[in-house]
Amino acid sequence: MTDHDRLTELATRRGFYFPAAGAYGGVAGFYTYGPQGAALKRNVESAWRDRFLTREDHMEVAGPTVMPEPVFEASGHLDGFDDMILECPGCGASHRADHLVEDNTDIEDAEALGTERVAELIAEHDLECPSCGAVLAGESVTAFNLMFGTNIGPGSSAPGYLRPETAQAIFVEFPRLAEYARNQLPFGVGQIGTAYRNEISPRRGLIRVREFTQAELEHFVHPEGAPPDLSGVAETSLSLYPIDSQQARSAEHVETTVGEALEAGVIGSPWIAYYLGIAKEWYEHVGVDMDRFRFRQHLPGERAHYATDCWDAEAELGGNWIEISGFSTRGTYDLSRHADHSGESMTVFEPYEKPQTTERPAVDPDMSYLGPEFGDRAPEVVAALKERAAEEPEAFDGEEIEVTIDGETHAIPMAITGFEIREETISGEHVTPEVIEPSFGVDRVFATVFEHAFRRDSVEGEERTYLSLPPELAPTFVGVFPLMDKDGMGERAKEIADALRERGFAVEYDDSGSIGRRYRRQDEIGTPLCLTVDYESVEGDGSVTLRDRDSAAQSRVPAGEDLDRLLEALADLRAGRQTVAAIKEELGLETVAGDEDPIDAGAE
Amino acid sequence: MTDHDRLTELATRRGFYFPAAGAYGGVAGFYTYGPQGAALKRNVESAWRDRFLTREDHMEVAGPTVMPEPVFEASGHLDGFDDMILECPGCGASHRADHLVEDNTDIEDAEALGTERVAELIAEHDLECPSCGAVLAGESVTAFNLMFGTNIGPGSSAPGYLRPETAQAIFVEFPRLAEYARNQLPFGVGQIGTAYRNEISPRRGLIRVREFTQAELEHFVHPEGAPPDLSGVAETSLSLYPIDSQQARSAEHVETTVGEALEAGVIGSPWIAYYLGIAKEWYEHVGVDMDRFRFRQHLPGERAHYATDCWDAEAELGGNWIEISGFSTRGTYDLSRHADHSGESMTVFEPYEKPQTTERPAVDPDMSYLGPEFGDRAPEVVAALKERAAEEPEAFDGEEIEVTIDGETHAIPMAITGFEIREETISGEHVTPEVIEPSFGVDRVFATVFEHAFRRDSVEGEERTYLSLPPELAPTFVGVFPLMDKDGMGERAKEIADALRERGFAVEYDDSGSIGRRYRRQDEIGTPLCLTVDYESVEGDGSVTLRDRDSAAQSRVPAGEDLDRLLEALADLRAGRQTVAAIKEELGLETVAGDEDPIDAGAE
Repeated sequence: MTDHDRLTELATRRGFYFPAAGAYGGVAGFYTYGPQGAALKRNVESAWRDRFLTREDHMEVAGPTVMPEPVFEASGHLDGFDDMILECPGCGASHRADHLVEDNTDIEDAEALGTERVAELIAEHDLECPSCGAVLAGESVTAFNLMFGTNIGPGSSAPGYLRPETAQAIFVEFPRLAEYARNQLPFGVGQIGTAYRNEISPRRGLIRVREFTQAELEHFVHPEGAPPDLSGVAETSLSLYPIDSQQARSAEHVETTVGEALEAGVIGSPWIAYYLGIAKEWYEHVGVDMDRFRFRQHLPGERAHYATDCWDAEAELGGNWIEISGFSTRGTYDLSRHADHSGESMTVFEPYEKPQTTERPAVDPDMSYLGPEFGDRAPEVVAALKERAAEEPEAFDGEEIEVTIDGETHAIPMAITGFEIREETISGEHVTPEVIEPSFGVDRVFATVFEHAFRRDSVEGEERTYLSLPPELAPTFVGVFPLMDKDGMGERAKEIADALRERGFAVEYDDSGSIGRRYRRQDEIGTPLCLTVDYESVEGDGSVTLRDRDSAAQSRVPAGEDLDRLLEALADLRAGRQTVAAIKEELGLETVAGDEDPIDAGAE
Repeated sequence: MTDHDRLTELATRRGFYFPAAGAYGGVAGFYTYGPQGAALKRNVESAWRDRFLTREDHMEVAGPTVMPEPVFEASGHLDGFDDMILECPGCGASHRADHLVEDNTDIEDAEALGTERVAELIAEHDLECPSCGAVLAGESVTAFNLMFGTNIGPGSSAPGYLRPETAQAIFVEFPRLAEYARNQLPFGVGQIGTAYRNEISPRRGLIRVREFTQAELEHFVHPEGAPPDLSGVAETSLSLYPIDSQQARSAEHVETTVGEALEAGVIGSPWIAYYLGIAKEWYEHVGVDMDRFRFRQHLPGERAHYATDCWDAEAELGGNWIEISGFSTRGTYDLSRHADHSGESMTVFEPYEKPQTTERPAVDPDMSYLGPEFGDRAPEVVAALKERAAEEPEAFDGEEIEVTIDGETHAIPMAITGFEIREETISGEHVTPEVIEPSFGVDRVFATVFEHAFRRDSVEGEERTYLSLPPELAPTFVGVFPLMDKDGMGERAKEIADALRERGFAVEYDDSGSIGRRYRRQDEIGTPLCLTVDYESVEGDGSVTLRDRDSAAQSRVPAGEDLDRLLEALADLRAGRQTVAAIKEELGLETVAGDEDPIDAGAE
């Protein structure tokens, strides 16, 4: 069994995730998170919210997942959110045409070649249907829109779509969100929510699915505004895979820092550099293995046409580098498109520090002269005067001014033009903000945290599987066990469990099976700590056993103040401010046994 | 302006909620939660999770929102999840036919009358189109399925639907969920997630929308299992509106307790009684006004055919009683249907306390006799022997036994039948659990909490609007203000804000505008407390001002230990274990001023 098979088996058996609706044969690209997975995913979302919204003082909103068609006409998804599809003439199966080429040739980014060239390549390489073996040469390759469509209300007069990205639910509400930000740039708006992609062939477990959760931040900045304060991240180390290295087909990453990469021009935008820095620290914090993590720059052909610099965070999963988040400069593209399509202003009014005064030539002709003189054509004369005043104000310094209407020239007395140079005061300007977008695939982050936490070792000669999840993410934070549910041990364990729950921790009380089996179960779901109540706890000195997941080591925690101090210290452990080792040292706890200590013998 | 208009205005202006995609004219039935609303909604969800899942030790899962058609064939939604629709022949607008009747006649539950009778009533009452005034008599009333349909993958070969209730994503995964529960009844599985109803005419703000959030608990219980432990809720008071009172058209509620109502048979199921009890306490805890709250029993015609006893929690909103959650006995309906349609077992194996031994007649015929004697027809003889043994074992007590094959009777020697009475040990049975379902509409709970928290009063002669939200739900828990951002006051306020954030509280730092305006803003978004740093805080004794939302009273909190103790006490306040008044008493804080105290004067 490979580690990947072990992971999938563990995911199903222990309730992390599994393909949905299995009773009906399942439907590709949809997963259900079981009790452990739902908790881990929520914890990933909370950690993201804490770092990217709360600590950055950004807003969070929650918009609908179904939106009307005009939104996606404006966003460009109705026309451009496509994959290449080819239908097998033999069995009728639909395939990603570009994937057929990539899977059977050395070509890496077939999508960039266009549908016609991909169809040619399929013919040139004599590719066959992976399902039935039929010859595919000559079959047409077409664009398939990846949005799930539906109808809002009865009939088909109001088509709607499941949003392909959470971002659009933020952009369309820009005018109101700007008000909440008191119309001051920069400001950021985030959203954690469901998005959908009607994939032609979903694959790779949680990686390419049809329904997924995104955590997106749209940071609206002034196009000529100040860059962010980089002092907190300038020294943060980054492992980069820039365009140059990719084009040179080098596998080497550039090991640098945020400050250096920006100075060297490897990263173009200071905003992108800022977010790569805090994202790197966040990924490390939530347990992503930094030896299996990098930022890859988009190749020029990969970027959306409106983006100037884009990077993906990539994690190594099952031997492949997988995109787990993207950092893009979306420019003014989205807001401009929505302004054009909706007719609503998508700007922020930026007052100048001082109102600016400009001079503007103007006319205010005397119509009691022009009317009788020109009749119906008087308005044309007014327009001509205005035009000359704007273009050639110096012409107004004589007694008369000439204007030409339909090829005929008329001399107008200067006195009736009302010409003057007016002073105008402008207090500011309407600015369409640029958008910096860190966009996270929550399910992919989940998959990375899960796979990178997976460990196997041997404890006292027995093979063990455990998830070394950071305490902040673990579905269960503490397991509390009575050695057996008798002689007051169950009651005491329940008291401790309740005291822990009271402090807001996720606690699992378990009194069934041997202590060893209970430890193994908590190991497999990544519970950092277990507390066990035994005879000594209820009839002796009141101490309990503290058992640490990663080392499988056990210590005795004396009753009373020490136990209270331990419970206090757990909040720091949960928040990632403290390690188990440091807590044990602080409390003077010594390891008394490995996982197979004497108390285990009495458990069955 | 009515209170309802004031609420809607506040919801939009302060970022609670507003109709989505307003830039495109909006689309009825979809709302966006702004920053305050998204936080309040999350807090409602957390409070629900805490009470109905964590404290009850139930599991939580997260399934997909798009599910394939066979799921809804089984659930009955494809056939029966309909509303009555009538299309206007004049303007083409679609209307809820039953609502047309209800809005224009004295009839209350038109849906129960069926489409034909509703069409007749529309003709009898000469009803007209509310949009264009066209005569509607003679127009057909049909059933419109309320599920949003879509297609999974390319083409239309795999229809899917947006789930109309989160529950189905639990039922279809029953076999695996039962494993996670170690196959032991009872166990509960909850889910908080999006569900969809393609309403014909959405209305009433957040109350009847097309996309909404449900918090549902499916509690799987043994049909003959023990009732729940009611000791914790027996004395809980309930305001009930049972079938009798409704049929007698009495507006009076029955004021009783969980224990009494169950004993008197007003509530039929002890499980429903249990959940009404904890729901009542929970609603009170999250700020629902108990004078505007009741449980209404479903009338016989209202219940799903498989349900035996159903109650709705109803809140008075804008003068109407609105269903905000439902408590149903779903019986074995869902699991049986999914077992039938999917072919998967949806049962739990319940071992008997002691294995049961039963006697069963059996035959084991000697084929070396039957083969030569009957040739091809020997298997039919075996089948006939088995059937007689099962139905008439006493017939096997002679020398021969007669069996009839195709009308022909044969005598078979007893010796070759291998007849015997076998002892069989059965260790348990496969049980299809019954389902008890508390189902909460999160948006409706949100709307209730929001409306019931809405207050207006007068502080020092000035009119004030505030939301008296419980601290546990408030989007912002503490506002922290420097009197002005100078002379170290900003720095000190930021220190305090950071210390509070470190403790996990939602904090808003605000240094713009007068203190009075900042208090008013926090009042409007329901922030329970504000701390203000002034000159005394940085140049004098270090004390800060504590300002309480509901009373608008201010107290001075001395620096040092008192401030530390206040910060400690806030965790209890946030969790609803402590009141502001009690904390002030404990710390010996006296009110020094109302909302318009002297420090306000210096603020602008």
